[in-house]
Amino acid sequence: MKMNPDLRLTVTLRLLDGEGQRRFGPGVAALLEQVQTQKSLRAAAGSMGMAYSKAWRIIRNAEEALDCRLLESTIGGKHGGGAVLTAEAEGLLESYQALQREVEACAREGFAVRFGAFRKGE
Amino acid sequence: MKMNPDLRLTVTLRLLDGEGQRRFGPGVAALLEQVQTQKSLRAAAGSMGMAYSKAWRIIRNAEEALDCRLLESTIGGKHGGGAVLTAEAEGLLESYQALQREVEACAREGFAVRFGAFRKGE
Repeated sequence: MKMNPDLRLTVTLRLLDGEGQRRFGPGVAALLEQVQTQKSLRAAAGSMGMAYSKAWRIIRNAEEALDCRLLESTIGGKHGGGAVLTAEAEGLLESYQALQREVEACAREGFAVRFGAFRKGE
Repeated sequence: MKMNPDLRLTVTLRLLDGEGQRRFGPGVAALLEQVQTQKSLRAAAGSMGMAYSKAWRIIRNAEEALDCRLLESTIGGKHGGGAVLTAEAEGLLESYQALQREVEACAREGFAVRFGAFRKGE
């Protein structure tokens, strides 16, 4: 069996609530990263080709599960003022990113061991 | 920040091809597991509430990427004879399941370390 050498392993980490609903994962993380750069939820959503209402729902959904605010308004005015991450969101995002890196390293190692035989055409 | 204690971490492992298309992951794995039990792709698809044509496409898609057959017919007749996993598919599924268990253990450990603070209401 010769596995296509182009194949690569990806790892997705998600936080689910008691009912199995997705509350935090790559989508929220990417959105928070974009807010860090764009300093605005509207701009962050736009840069991801996502409707503002959807972005807002994703953030609220995570905030509810985590029981904390993730964004704070920087101008607060009408016409969608800017937004930045709260200290909690910064910490959470950093933890998620670090966990992602760690788990990926672990998965890569296991993949080489477990799937090495398939890739060598055993 | 007191994270909802109901939140749990899930890990999804997927094999993507060079174009980023999903080729092997929890869907194919679950389908193969069902074929192991049901001895038929049609019955396996049915038990997952999946159309037979979709199940067949999922299997073909993985077979193409892995460059090997995953299923073999047991009766081969018309009206959807039975199917069992090839030796390659058995090995692949076992490797995937083992990798999943290992990576989950690694993720659980990292989650406790990285997210412990959030959960204790720091």
